[in-house]
Amino acid sequence: MAWKTRAWTLIDRPDGLPKREHFALHDFDDPPLCEAEVRVRNLWLTVGPAMRVRMSAQTRGYLPPFALGRPMEGWAIGEVVASKTQALAEGDLVMHQHGLRDYSQGPAAGFEKLPKPGPPPHHYLNALGSTGYTAYVGLLHIGEPRPGETMFVSGAAGAVGSTAVQIGKALGLTVVGSAGGETKRRLLLDLGADAAIDYRSPGPLTEKLAAAAPQGIDIYIDNVGGEHLDAALAAARPHARFAMSGMISSYNRDQARDVMHHLNRIVTQRIRLQGYLPFADHVEGLGPFREQMWSWIEAGRVRPLQTIWDGLEHVPTVIEELFAGGFTGKPLIRI
Amino acid sequence: MAWKTRAWTLIDRPDGLPKREHFALHDFDDPPLCEAEVRVRNLWLTVGPAMRVRMSAQTRGYLPPFALGRPMEGWAIGEVVASKTQALAEGDLVMHQHGLRDYSQGPAAGFEKLPKPGPPPHHYLNALGSTGYTAYVGLLHIGEPRPGETMFVSGAAGAVGSTAVQIGKALGLTVVGSAGGETKRRLLLDLGADAAIDYRSPGPLTEKLAAAAPQGIDIYIDNVGGEHLDAALAAARPHARFAMSGMISSYNRDQARDVMHHLNRIVTQRIRLQGYLPFADHVEGLGPFREQMWSWIEAGRVRPLQTIWDGLEHVPTVIEELFAGGFTGKPLIRI
Repeated sequence: MAWKTRAWTLIDRPDGLPKREHFALHDFDDPPLCEAEVRVRNLWLTVGPAMRVRMSAQTRGYLPPFALGRPMEGWAIGEVVASKTQALAEGDLVMHQHGLRDYSQGPAAGFEKLPKPGPPPHHYLNALGSTGYTAYVGLLHIGEPRPGETMFVSGAAGAVGSTAVQIGKALGLTVVGSAGGETKRRLLLDLGADAAIDYRSPGPLTEKLAAAAPQGIDIYIDNVGGEHLDAALAAARPHARFAMSGMISSYNRDQARDVMHHLNRIVTQRIRLQGYLPFADHVEGLGPFREQMWSWIEAGRVRPLQTIWDGLEHVPTVIEELFAGGFTGKPLIRI
Repeated sequence: MAWKTRAWTLIDRPDGLPKREHFALHDFDDPPLCEAEVRVRNLWLTVGPAMRVRMSAQTRGYLPPFALGRPMEGWAIGEVVASKTQALAEGDLVMHQHGLRDYSQGPAAGFEKLPKPGPPPHHYLNALGSTGYTAYVGLLHIGEPRPGETMFVSGAAGAVGSTAVQIGKALGLTVVGSAGGETKRRLLLDLGADAAIDYRSPGPLTEKLAAAAPQGIDIYIDNVGGEHLDAALAAARPHARFAMSGMISSYNRDQARDVMHHLNRIVTQRIRLQGYLPFADHVEGLGPFREQMWSWIEAGRVRPLQTIWDGLEHVPTVIEELFAGGFTGKPLIRI
């Protein structure tokens, strides 16, 4: 028996920002399940900035490029509808990376069983998933926060950033966030940030950060890079720690080019910059993280920020708006 | 009783490379010694690239600017000629930072007594001093070398770099060095480097490093920054460690400006960059370091590289040539 699946494919590689014309929704015939495989009806999909790297012919990342005309991959949550393994049964809730399609199937090892009953499943694509874990590892494992310290978060109205801001406040840090536009700037204050910067407002970012954090910064949670990284170097106090999980500023350029004025402060301030991919290097800490994060959510200390679309057809819109800064928090597609 | 001292002063702040016309040798009258002070006749002086930072009106470093017309400071070794403390006696050998003059005096706490008899004293301004310790801390404490790894050293014909190359080989690492010019490139091979790059030869440094270290690099000992740092990022293997003790590429510019193409690899390769100033942060390890380093020197595993001038009058020449790459190893001025 073969099944029909509708899946989003990359039909043209973007040169710069990805637009909806780079994507097409195609029907595919899936083969019958092999031993130890499962088939899943997807309920929630998401997209993230790191996908942009895989849209180029040559990735500078750690995952291969998307093949043209083939289904793209992304994080998803679904319900098992057919199983040839004892490990998973029909009706089980699972999380996997074979998303951007209405049905996914493959070896059961690629599908993580989620608790049922348990937290609302979409949290696993946001605060309880790689998004929340990226903020958590950056702040706790790399940032090594100490009482009274100041943390700066770039992309603070985004998925990782908004979570980092709230964890920082839950830990009692002074938190400064940066986002694009006055509406997002006010959102950061609503999330609890002590100071918030609209990086699109006139003037150098270095001066805006110096005004927002006159005492300097001890921790920087960076998923932007570029001018934000340079401003954070300028504001760093001695022995500052920079947790670097992304460089969205460089994803849409085949030739990254950052003009930096403050790299020498790495030496004079004895700054530590640590790149990290939480699911590549820190996967052993995932269990305790989820317990801690769920207790923060239940206590209202962390309110996961998300924007929801209904319908598989919205995937290209969400990708386009992701890089245009068109929404706040984690984008979730419910199907 | 007052003493006469001849001391080098900064008479004009360089805009770019420091030249001999920025300096003048002046006679000063030193006051009589106070309680707990000593007076020292200097035997050996040295200069280092970080001094350039203090020649600017506004330092981006951790030490204040040199005052115009006042004696400059620098590392020196001398012999106590007068003492008003029990801790030091006439004839004692001491190391201090009040150099670039024929006599120095001040509170005894600023003068470290050296063993006598012991290693030849000038070693304390090179392999047994801050130079050797910068290489040692960068490689051992920050680099955390593991068997079979590859280390890249910039400025490898310089004082810190040539020491790092030799420690790396003593530890069994594969070592790649970079220096300016074919003569220095061959010197690196003589020091034991497995591959050596002349960064002044035609072509992009990124390609030269890729050819010299096709397997990539695990450790980078950087006191140059700029294009070398960018090339090291491009060559970094996963979890590479970068020990950053200087950015000579930026010292001669009031407005540092580095165009970087590979910063995103901090994330994708999960690189750690750590700025450090060994005498500010690691001073507790100095004793064990000196024992280890002296045993390497005695065994011929580390041959301290130095260039010696005779006479106080050579100080401006040495500063000028330091930034022109005019000599190899540590510059020592014998007076």
